[in-house]
Amino acid sequence: MSKPDKLKARQPRGFVDRGPADVAATERMLGVIRESFSRYGFDPVETPFVEFSDALGKFLPDQDRPNEGVFSFQDDDEQWLSLRYDLTAPLARYVAENYDALPKPYRSYRAGYVFRNEKPGPGRFRQFMQFDADIVGAGSVAADAEICMLAADTMEALGIKRGDYVVKVNNRKVLDGVMDAAGIDAVQRLGVLRAIDKADKFSLDEVGKLLGEGRKDESGDFTKGAGLSAAQTDKILRYLDIGKNLADLGKAYGHNLAKSAELSSAALQELRQLVVGADAGGEGIDELEQINALISGAGYLGRIIIDPSVVRGLEYYTGPVYEVELTFPVTNDDGQVVRFGSVAGGGRYDGLVGRFRPEPVPATGFSIGVSRLYSALKAVKSPIVDAKAELPLVVVTAMDNKSPEHMPGYQAFVSQLRQARDEAGKPLLRADLYLGSSGFNAQMKYADKRGAVCAVIQGSSERDAGTVIIKDLILGAELAAAGREVKDSAEHKERQAQAQITRPANQLVEGVKEVLARYK
Amino acid sequence: MSKPDKLKARQPRGFVDRGPADVAATERMLGVIRESFSRYGFDPVETPFVEFSDALGKFLPDQDRPNEGVFSFQDDDEQWLSLRYDLTAPLARYVAENYDALPKPYRSYRAGYVFRNEKPGPGRFRQFMQFDADIVGAGSVAADAEICMLAADTMEALGIKRGDYVVKVNNRKVLDGVMDAAGIDAVQRLGVLRAIDKADKFSLDEVGKLLGEGRKDESGDFTKGAGLSAAQTDKILRYLDIGKNLADLGKAYGHNLAKSAELSSAALQELRQLVVGADAGGEGIDELEQINALISGAGYLGRIIIDPSVVRGLEYYTGPVYEVELTFPVTNDDGQVVRFGSVAGGGRYDGLVGRFRPEPVPATGFSIGVSRLYSALKAVKSPIVDAKAELPLVVVTAMDNKSPEHMPGYQAFVSQLRQARDEAGKPLLRADLYLGSSGFNAQMKYADKRGAVCAVIQGSSERDAGTVIIKDLILGAELAAAGREVKDSAEHKERQAQAQITRPANQLVEGVKEVLARYK
Repeated sequence: MSKPDKLKARQPRGFVDRGPADVAATERMLGVIRESFSRYGFDPVETPFVEFSDALGKFLPDQDRPNEGVFSFQDDDEQWLSLRYDLTAPLARYVAENYDALPKPYRSYRAGYVFRNEKPGPGRFRQFMQFDADIVGAGSVAADAEICMLAADTMEALGIKRGDYVVKVNNRKVLDGVMDAAGIDAVQRLGVLRAIDKADKFSLDEVGKLLGEGRKDESGDFTKGAGLSAAQTDKILRYLDIGKNLADLGKAYGHNLAKSAELSSAALQELRQLVVGADAGGEGIDELEQINALISGAGYLGRIIIDPSVVRGLEYYTGPVYEVELTFPVTNDDGQVVRFGSVAGGGRYDGLVGRFRPEPVPATGFSIGVSRLYSALKAVKSPIVDAKAELPLVVVTAMDNKSPEHMPGYQAFVSQLRQARDEAGKPLLRADLYLGSSGFNAQMKYADKRGAVCAVIQGSSERDAGTVIIKDLILGAELAAAGREVKDSAEHKERQAQAQITRPANQLVEGVKEVLARYK
Repeated sequence: MSKPDKLKARQPRGFVDRGPADVAATERMLGVIRESFSRYGFDPVETPFVEFSDALGKFLPDQDRPNEGVFSFQDDDEQWLSLRYDLTAPLARYVAENYDALPKPYRSYRAGYVFRNEKPGPGRFRQFMQFDADIVGAGSVAADAEICMLAADTMEALGIKRGDYVVKVNNRKVLDGVMDAAGIDAVQRLGVLRAIDKADKFSLDEVGKLLGEGRKDESGDFTKGAGLSAAQTDKILRYLDIGKNLADLGKAYGHNLAKSAELSSAALQELRQLVVGADAGGEGIDELEQINALISGAGYLGRIIIDPSVVRGLEYYTGPVYEVELTFPVTNDDGQVVRFGSVAGGGRYDGLVGRFRPEPVPATGFSIGVSRLYSALKAVKSPIVDAKAELPLVVVTAMDNKSPEHMPGYQAFVSQLRQARDEAGKPLLRADLYLGSSGFNAQMKYADKRGAVCAVIQGSSERDAGTVIIKDLILGAELAAAGREVKDSAEHKERQAQAQITRPANQLVEGVKEVLARYK
């Protein structure tokens, strides 16, 4: 006879489970970000996971799947619904819907999972978390500057040291101006954006190939280029060169803030030459200069820098764009030492709310990639993601778990422990009653696997004597690991006595406190 | 010329946005639940929002939509995926997939949104939040008792007083035994469950009609009954009567715990008569007696009670089922005073993990309906959902916002304020720089709308004098509301001086602290 078919327990590709350490650390990380955003006067708001597909629009960086990057399904009235793919498009819908009731400018933050119907890969998921802050209804670049300062302060609140991050700012209008001045047409522009986006990985020569005919990589694969003329390519490379120089000089001068301000001003002057004759470009440079004055006045010079290579993938940006880069070195999958890279980014999207409203509604904001930031915090060993913040666990064993009449006694122990408080009235510990049907040895293994600090034991002889045994599992493990010589010593025998103490059952909580106090 | 068509900003039915007060209060509420669950030794785990449809199974209480209650879509390899409709089915998949690595019994908790493709209605959403705790791998009813105690402690941690809630426990096996003993066949049982589920709304006479031929309501609509014979109906009503008596007597005796224990024992003896000859029924009563002994030993008598009317809608329950009911009165939509009702429920589901595994895997757990609980906490004015927990807001106005050269100065003010700390190093306030383009009056209205405690003002004369004005908006509103007589008084004039103080610009933070200290 064959067994009935069992279902296979598995997840769809690109979706992952997260265990206790990850969940707890992310929770703490989100708490710090929330507090930082709140201090800037941002209020939380939450929109649902599902929106009308047409309300979301199609503003995705990659569209390599039949469903065009979004998970969609039809409602019973045949209207198309989609899972949100970012938190910006739903915010635009929310603001448009509640426009009259909201204070303007409207500052808000929100965290949550977003979904991309894309090919999953290493470090690339179909569900991932973003944490966004936006200012809607402020056309002034002072709003963009605020977002950049917020980004900088948030990195420091998370334990990333000054110098280990930089907020890089550019302006889409400058690049537009350069392209206008170079006579690059609308069809070629997407290719130019894509080539520029590679500037942090490739040399300028290689970027030049992508701007022109195309580029063959080491494997022989050919990527078609943007098809610019040599003169046009030169203009774009000149533009990128200004950015590279600025970044290199910035690194060389370190935290010399006066020098940093001087370099930014010089770079902006050079950029101005490149956009002569293009109105948008000049306006973009004026805006970057204003941003520089604002961050300088508020003391953020050197933490926020102008960098013309920042373009951001999304089509909807209309002005300043910015990116938070972590500058400390990590080793990548190929064994190379590289900068950690981008963990957040954003920009001005003046057209997005206006899709729903008769009047234009300016807006700017940024988005933190929560999973990438979490990896970064682990890399710099930030105390915020340190798993040690949990309360210690005590396991009450159930030696006589075959006889239901003894369980109420064990249950009473664990209930008493859960009420234990310190002098300030705060919970002291987590307590767990073993509820399986296995014997004593398996129960002690369970306590170990759960990382318990101590175990409470009462067999029939302790019950008769009205006592409990409290076993210090950390000391117990140390003693078990000791060598023969140590084990024969008098000190070892004294420590053995400490590793397992017996107390009257009505002094259980005091006994457990005594053991926990050894590991404060 | 016609304007271009604008998209309408709206949400799909059954999905809602949540504003700042709701988000912050829910966050605090989830924090309290998390701490309570953690103290019981439960670890967090998170599963994704999307699962293979076949892994979720079909265990929904209502299936009145073409998509059978679930939002589903096809992946690019044509496999069906679904949004999770609860947190239990994904947990079963998770445990089955990670069975060997997990400590057993495995205690875990998780909170998150779930989705139902159902007809939305008042208080009935297509996206809503659940907070679950489960113990997998423990067959003993000690696990069910733990969940009930956890539920009781969590209600108290949330500020719901003892006596304002009750955890009601039943056992599916008892009802099965009653139905076995009455000779009710498999086809009729779903109808019987549905009729019993109405026992908290209808009199026993009306429930009797639903058990027999059917029932006509006031509007004349006829609901077909379960089709039991008169003798069968009597047995079920007798069963329900025991529960009602127990509940009524329980209320009459209040917190007389000895009486409460005595009543439970008597009711269990009566139930035992009803299941004579049905093995499952006797086993169910044995289990309820064990649960009673466990809660009694741990001191939860009267907070957790046996109630045979609890059945729970879901098909997958196999043993004890439980429900948390809030007993304080509220006025319903029809103006009637009723008990608040159920905010959480759960039970034993021994078959669910076993769908994926060769061995049987017992499990039990419960789920809190977060939105309903939130309404309840607001009804009892629990401090946990009181919006006053936020830090006070200070708005820096930008009087000269038409001239970009003055913005850096205002930006510096707001940056200083954001760094303000109390003696213990904790942030003191939230600070917001007005970034719109409106004039001074609109800026003061903005500060009011945002609920700011004070506003910081610097016009050209203050700038020339190197000072700032700090306006106390709370006192200002009081003074503005005062009558003519009061306004002429000397005291009023003194308070007016307090409502608007001028300080050297480099003492801005001290001045703001001075005003905030008035409202500690």
